Amino acid sequence: MVDTSMSTHPFDDDHLNEECAVFGIYGPSDDASAHTALGLHAMQHRGQEASGMVSFDGSQFNAHRDIGLVGDIFGSEHVMSRLTGYASIGHNRYSTSGGTIMRNVQPLFADLEFGGFALAHNGNLTNANTLRRELVRRGSLFQSTSDTEVIIHLIATVRGESIIERMAEALREVEGAYSLVALTADGVIGVRDPLGVRPLVLGRNGESYLLASETCAFDIIGAEFVREVEPGEMVVLDGGEPRSLRIFPKQPQRFCVFEYIYFARPDSVLEGKSVYEARKNIGHELARESAVDADLVVPVPDSGVPAALGYAEESSLPFEFGIIRNHYVGRTFIEPGQEIRNLGVRLKHNANSAKLKGKRVILVDDSIVRGTTSRKIVQMVRTAGALEVHMRIASPPIAHSCFYGVDTPEREQLMAYQMDVEEMAKHLDVDSLAFISMDGLYRAMDETQRNNQLPQFCDACFTGDYPTELTDRASTDSPQLSLLTELQKT
Amino acid sequence: MVDTSMSTHPFDDDHLNEECAVFGIYGPSDDASAHTALGLHAMQHRGQEASGMVSFDGSQFNAHRDIGLVGDIFGSEHVMSRLTGYASIGHNRYSTSGGTIMRNVQPLFADLEFGGFALAHNGNLTNANTLRRELVRRGSLFQSTSDTEVIIHLIATVRGESIIERMAEALREVEGAYSLVALTADGVIGVRDPLGVRPLVLGRNGESYLLASETCAFDIIGAEFVREVEPGEMVVLDGGEPRSLRIFPKQPQRFCVFEYIYFARPDSVLEGKSVYEARKNIGHELARESAVDADLVVPVPDSGVPAALGYAEESSLPFEFGIIRNHYVGRTFIEPGQEIRNLGVRLKHNANSAKLKGKRVILVDDSIVRGTTSRKIVQMVRTAGALEVHMRIASPPIAHSCFYGVDTPEREQLMAYQMDVEEMAKHLDVDSLAFISMDGLYRAMDETQRNNQLPQFCDACFTGDYPTELTDRASTDSPQLSLLTELQKT
Amino acid sequence: MVDTSMSTHPFDDDHLNEECAVFGIYGPSDDASAHTALGLHAMQHRGQEASGMVSFDGSQFNAHRDIGLVGDIFGSEHVMSRLTGYASIGHNRYSTSGGTIMRNVQPLFADLEFGGFALAHNGNLTNANTLRRELVRRGSLFQSTSDTEVIIHLIATVRGESIIERMAEALREVEGAYSLVALTADGVIGVRDPLGVRPLVLGRNGESYLLASETCAFDIIGAEFVREVEPGEMVVLDGGEPRSLRIFPKQPQRFCVFEYIYFARPDSVLEGKSVYEARKNIGHELARESAVDADLVVPVPDSGVPAALGYAEESSLPFEFGIIRNHYVGRTFIEPGQEIRNLGVRLKHNANSAKLKGKRVILVDDSIVRGTTSRKIVQMVRTAGALEVHMRIASPPIAHSCFYGVDTPEREQLMAYQMDVEEMAKHLDVDSLAFISMDGLYRAMDETQRNNQLPQFCDACFTGDYPTELTDRASTDSPQLSLLTELQKT
Amino acid sequence: MVDTSMSTHPFDDDHLNEECAVFGIYGPSDDASAHTALGLHAMQHRGQEASGMVSFDGSQFNAHRDIGLVGDIFGSEHVMSRLTGYASIGHNRYSTSGGTIMRNVQPLFADLEFGGFALAHNGNLTNANTLRRELVRRGSLFQSTSDTEVIIHLIATVRGESIIERMAEALREVEGAYSLVALTADGVIGVRDPLGVRPLVLGRNGESYLLASETCAFDIIGAEFVREVEPGEMVVLDGGEPRSLRIFPKQPQRFCVFEYIYFARPDSVLEGKSVYEARKNIGHELARESAVDADLVVPVPDSGVPAALGYAEESSLPFEFGIIRNHYVGRTFIEPGQEIRNLGVRLKHNANSAKLKGKRVILVDDSIVRGTTSRKIVQMVRTAGALEVHMRIASPPIAHSCFYGVDTPEREQLMAYQMDVEEMAKHLDVDSLAFISMDGLYRAMDETQRNNQLPQFCDACFTGDYPTELTDRASTDSPQLSLLTELQKT
Repeated sequence: MVDTSMSTHPFDDDHLNEECAVFGIYGPSDDASAHTALGLHAMQHRGQEASGMVSFDGSQFNAHRDIGLVGDIFGSEHVMSRLTGYASIGHNRYSTSGGTIMRNVQPLFADLEFGGFALAHNGNLTNANTLRRELVRRGSLFQSTSDTEVIIHLIATVRGESIIERMAEALREVEGAYSLVALTADGVIGVRDPLGVRPLVLGRNGESYLLASETCAFDIIGAEFVREVEPGEMVVLDGGEPRSLRIFPKQPQRFCVFEYIYFARPDSVLEGKSVYEARKNIGHELARESAVDADLVVPVPDSGVPAALGYAEESSLPFEFGIIRNHYVGRTFIEPGQEIRNLGVRLKHNANSAKLKGKRVILVDDSIVRGTTSRKIVQMVRTAGALEVHMRIASPPIAHSCFYGVDTPEREQLMAYQMDVEEMAKHLDVDSLAFISMDGLYRAMDETQRNNQLPQFCDACFTGDYPTELTDRASTDSPQLSLLTELQKT
Repeated sequence: MVDTSMSTHPFDDDHLNEECAVFGIYGPSDDASAHTALGLHAMQHRGQEASGMVSFDGSQFNAHRDIGLVGDIFGSEHVMSRLTGYASIGHNRYSTSGGTIMRNVQPLFADLEFGGFALAHNGNLTNANTLRRELVRRGSLFQSTSDTEVIIHLIATVRGESIIERMAEALREVEGAYSLVALTADGVIGVRDPLGVRPLVLGRNGESYLLASETCAFDIIGAEFVREVEPGEMVVLDGGEPRSLRIFPKQPQRFCVFEYIYFARPDSVLEGKSVYEARKNIGHELARESAVDADLVVPVPDSGVPAALGYAEESSLPFEFGIIRNHYVGRTFIEPGQEIRNLGVRLKHNANSAKLKGKRVILVDDSIVRGTTSRKIVQMVRTAGALEVHMRIASPPIAHSCFYGVDTPEREQLMAYQMDVEEMAKHLDVDSLAFISMDGLYRAMDETQRNNQLPQFCDACFTGDYPTELTDRASTDSPQLSLLTELQKT
Repeated sequence: MVDTSMSTHPFDDDHLNEECAVFGIYGPSDDASAHTALGLHAMQHRGQEASGMVSFDGSQFNAHRDIGLVGDIFGSEHVMSRLTGYASIGHNRYSTSGGTIMRNVQPLFADLEFGGFALAHNGNLTNANTLRRELVRRGSLFQSTSDTEVIIHLIATVRGESIIERMAEALREVEGAYSLVALTADGVIGVRDPLGVRPLVLGRNGESYLLASETCAFDIIGAEFVREVEPGEMVVLDGGEPRSLRIFPKQPQRFCVFEYIYFARPDSVLEGKSVYEARKNIGHELARESAVDADLVVPVPDSGVPAALGYAEESSLPFEFGIIRNHYVGRTFIEPGQEIRNLGVRLKHNANSAKLKGKRVILVDDSIVRGTTSRKIVQMVRTAGALEVHMRIASPPIAHSCFYGVDTPEREQLMAYQMDVEEMAKHLDVDSLAFISMDGLYRAMDETQRNNQLPQFCDACFTGDYPTELTDRASTDSPQLSLLTELQKT
Repeated sequence: MVDTSMSTHPFDDDHLNEECAVFGIYGPSDDASAHTALGLHAMQHRGQEASGMVSFDGSQFNAHRDIGLVGDIFGSEHVMSRLTGYASIGHNRYSTSGGTIMRNVQPLFADLEFGGFALAHNGNLTNANTLRRELVRRGSLFQSTSDTEVIIHLIATVRGESIIERMAEALREVEGAYSLVALTADGVIGVRDPLGVRPLVLGRNGESYLLASETCAFDIIGAEFVREVEPGEMVVLDGGEPRSLRIFPKQPQRFCVFEYIYFARPDSVLEGKSVYEARKNIGHELARESAVDADLVVPVPDSGVPAALGYAEESSLPFEFGIIRNHYVGRTFIEPGQEIRNLGVRLKHNANSAKLKGKRVILVDDSIVRGTTSRKIVQMVRTAGALEVHMRIASPPIAHSCFYGVDTPEREQLMAYQMDVEEMAKHLDVDSLAFISMDGLYRAMDETQRNNQLPQFCDACFTGDYPTELTDRASTDSPQLSLLTELQKT
């Protein structure tokens, strides 16, 4: 039997994927690491490949980083009992191509002149390679290929009388999107890039203050949401009230609209909007823009569910689970022989034939990247006996790569880069296909329309309208470590 | 993925839990083990603690059994390449209290006088201890505490000219519920107990024939459903058409009604009924029996979703995901200090506050066992701002233990054994509480009403009306291995 | 440590190898398992592949078995803290070809009608296959291919009112060599076969009594040697004085002479003789029988050292470590390309060229099996500059297989089966070669000469004169488990 | 690095221990890593805790480092097949206090501006902490506490047009003892400190050149010894003949005399002297200096054997193995209860009572550090029945710590710091005790006597006469990483 791994991140192999979640807490109690583990667990959807945590207990830093799910990494008394301390930061990481290397797992840690320093990062720098080359030339030794290490070496080598001065100085040299959480012996520091592309929220739990990528990380531990960290703001948690430092001049925000479409949890509230409601709103707009005569509205679970509910509500058609999702998928799964390889998609999805047979079905999904999964799902629905299949997509066509911390395929692999909507419909074998319009999307976000001069969101994956310089994009080389293989200790 | 949909309920700690799934395949191709792995994966909801497989390749038997999810156990080339053969059986096991011991992981294997013999079992014998004592007295050495090994020792020691004769002879000595799948050098054998309590279905994939606990195991590999194995029937797959042997006289069936309520996947079809439709039907009946004035119908995900959809449909109230479920839960999770232990439930569920605030909510769940989870969920919904909480349960009150292969707590821990409905409502802190009536349940199953003389289903967990003798129940001792701890090889 | 001394011969791939050591202790204190671990460690030379222990603490049996060295298997608090109890037995196992299977690692354990029963075995039955076939026919299910399990199934199925009666009854059915140690809830039992082929000694430590294969296992814990267990005797340790039961009529003993030549540790005393002195005596005899004009006597370390010392003493030639042995050899080592494969022998031995250059060297080794290692060592000594190499062997030529628990190659691979002494000398490229004569060997054992009618020792590997029936030898098939591969849990 | 703790290698806990072996090879064939593994194995006695290797194959560097023995780490095809290349360096490491941290395992690797760079180090810098503080101040981020990393950061930040210029420049800043082997894309580089304290030898195998700590590493692969690398010399292997660069002015050498006494293998030849002969010479001198009337000369195996042979030769007394050593000792062993803890020494040594009883014994050992083991051995010999015990030690009393790469305890724990010889004799319970005299030691080294103005060897552990500055010794702080615990990935 032929057996090769179908996917090492089986959960959404045809989606854009957020690369990270960050979390930080500073508080009087000694539960910092337990709270951090819970917060990371609540944000597991933002990174399932690896997680890490660094805590500080007043005299020592303690760390644990591993590949796997939060519950498995931080699930043992053995591990948690060593992560002592009243301050802690954590990070979830999404897998990148080529497998996760342990030394890229965050938070990164360094011994600076000032003492220990840990850093966790959500986002992506667009001039990291340029900065890296200069740092190596001056004698900095890199252990990883991550942007995060570039920031740490900058902090180690720039001038500045305190760690805060140095962080500010270092960040003035970088371009791109970042929501950072750092830990020092003095406190926890949060920073958001000047455009506020990635989310970062401030919370409170009694006398403890917290930072997280999403509000759901507060809910799990019963903490309350205080406010967003503002674009270009540095927040310092070191006892008492959080201190706010403005390290960049104020600019109009360019928050990532895809957080609402897919990345964030439906129960999170971002920039004042319920993600669940935003998705249902998109469903309403989509139903208004592209109504069709049909019997059922069926979501592609799980991500298509809220938009499908909104579509059904607006169109007054029945909402049914015509596709059932199997959540039990291990890290890897067998790749059977050619004959049964096409069945692969059914590892996650199965048609609920009793419901689909003889019906005209509106299939609602949140987005299409390569189209590979969508095509198989349509085929499965037809095999189950559906008479017609109409596909409705809760985002505009994705035609551009993201350079701000989202794992996108090469542009050439994007279905919407290769084909127009009519070609896509044919390729997917659907009776009709419609994406929400750009203005429809902005309406669902409570805007009248997109401001084309200064868009209210970062929507570069749809429009190619990137809000920052893309310095590294010009240069062809990406950072490489000379050491090809360091075999992992088994 | 954090989902808002229905799924195959992982890690529900306040549910009754099926103990097993079985699978078998005999066919011309060499893909037996790949198909078995896929089938077991599709039935992962019936047992998440451990899985095993034994294949036969014409000259040798090959086995692999381990603790973990199917995708992890059978996900490597290393493992699959050794499980060669055209015939194979597999098993998923649910964890029982006290942890899973490797030697209890099925299929069990033995070298009989006739050659190798592997056996996988879904169900539970009610005279296993009695039989075991006699076997030990005669010199049989037991390696496990499982019922399955009792059956194997019976087969090894009874008279009979062939393995089939011996299996029939051995099964005449046992009482209880069982759906068995066995593998010998000659073929794959399936047997269902005389009352057909546990499911077992026959499928076909080209020239290959298959046996499985549920039809969803056929869907994943594109096989077609042929028919149920009948109560008291033995089916032999050894090339050509399956052979059917009647090893017990025909009796009216007593299929487990809880398979429809909770155990089976919604996309399975059991005894001719769609599980999804059966659950929606229960929702319809429940809405008719216990209507209440409210704003929203909210399922407790994932298991309450179809009944909630049915309830919303019948009551014309909006259906909303007011509770979001996090499917990323590792095997274990941190056991935090007392202070944050109460937050435990939020590892899996979070309130979607934007939707619940100021609303009168009908909460729909499939069943209540101890009530511990339900109580926390009600509290969470109230904290999120719901004005009223009305709970509706898609099964009658569970007041009796199951002795047929379902993991039930001690009767004293069952909420419905301790309290009447009014007390339960108070304990759960709901504004109203209603369970579906027994006749309502039978109506949802397309029966006019329950036949109290000869019930159409096994509903003993609600009624205490057990369809077989409970021989072992009288005796106080359960089988014990003298060896307390065999430390696992790390 | 790189040593120049004699030691307990690890990893000699061109030696006969003992398959096992056994140990048992029953005593008032709770240190049974710690003492057992120490005793097994002292007897590590009798089996390096795997070890196991079963203890009894008054209510439960506890077991741990693993592959590796005693110090690694029983070196952790984690393991030892669970092996509670005042009685314990243990076993070291030598690797057999094809790798050790976990289920063959002893002690084996079974739940008998009487309760738990653990058994460890040094030796080999010569009618095991015959007995096994009959047991399987009657319904016994085997888990391993070991002789030991045959004994356990016999005990489970024979008649007898107590475990002791049953053991005696069962042993009357077996042929071959065995020193057994068993553990029940009532005590520890030791048995030696009627001819006393394998060693078994009784010791005392305060109120504790002990059984072991060699006296060095008593030394390590400060226990004193009491006496040999006699051939055909069963000794029961259950508090108070050991009880002795004669389960076989008395016969003249046939102790394995190779225990003195190579198997046993030099500091052990067996059947009243110091192993070290016996080896030096052989050296004396050898020097008298085969003197040669030379400059140095050089042992092949470690096993040739005492005989070389004796030879040097008798011949008044200088004794020098002309070959240095590296004891740091891991479980496995790289299998380098063909070009450097011939260097293999140097993993363990290196010539001390400063000493050998220009010298006529007498090389003393304990025995020759295949001759592969000897040949490489001679070549190494010549390359280091030796003028002449005279080889002297402290045993007669090995020309027959052992059927009593010693791992011997196929007879066809024995150098002495293929060639006469002259051919061997040529093949090994030595200037002269001499083995001790049979009568020389017996003289070194303090006998006047070998009694050819009734030899004082088992010397079948030299003479082919086997002291028992070899029932299984006639039949061609060896026991096979149908299950080819059970993949190990990683 | 100075390591003042006790060893974690529990079975040589009363010896000074060398911290490292280094190896390097550059040659036309692709066997670099296989040769390196063999060379490291031959030098296992210089470090048993961890080993590592970095190879270069013309385009990529490949590394593998792990904790354990060479044969275990590099014993699998899986590992070796990835360590491709024609150039390679390797390192064995001795354990330091508190367990070995993976990031301290050498060779260390860095991405310099010039490309990949790997470094392995035997020795210890005496101004490492001072240099480290300055490097951290300038922005260097340290990953380990090792001296080796100090050298790498110096190389990364000093000026120089090539890696060779930079290495020379960097080494001019360091003080202490070092034998270095480095790997770059251009070749393998060996450097020895200006005093040549630690050994480093150059060898040749066909067209391949090699560097190693000891000649035994050449023997194992059939390579020939060429010459010592000279004190203060840098040797570059990059194809063709080795290039020699003098990066320091010539000075009289101060080779470590303890290499002859204990560290090196007896079959190695260092600075022109056979280690085995040197040890026998010491035995001769010792017998002349401190003769005593006795029956037997008995070595403490293994390290006392050659000196004991020399002593026996000179004194014409019989040489006997009165103590037997068990070489099978795992990494760790049980720590039994207090009652049997005193038996600990017998894990390694057992008295050969048959030989010792009623005898006057001269016990010869190589050195005494704390005296704990010696005391137990004397007690064991007396218990075995020896009438008198006279101890003779093949080195002068050790009364000073080593700062050049040898693991010595705190000075206060050295027996010779606390007591004079008479007190020691009493403490050890011997009838007489003698150490070789300082001039006796020098005579055994073929010197007339010690040159007290400019000693011919480094003998600081006996005399306190340190050949370099001890800059760090004044400062109280040792380098610490802020990160207390990074839990190892299991």
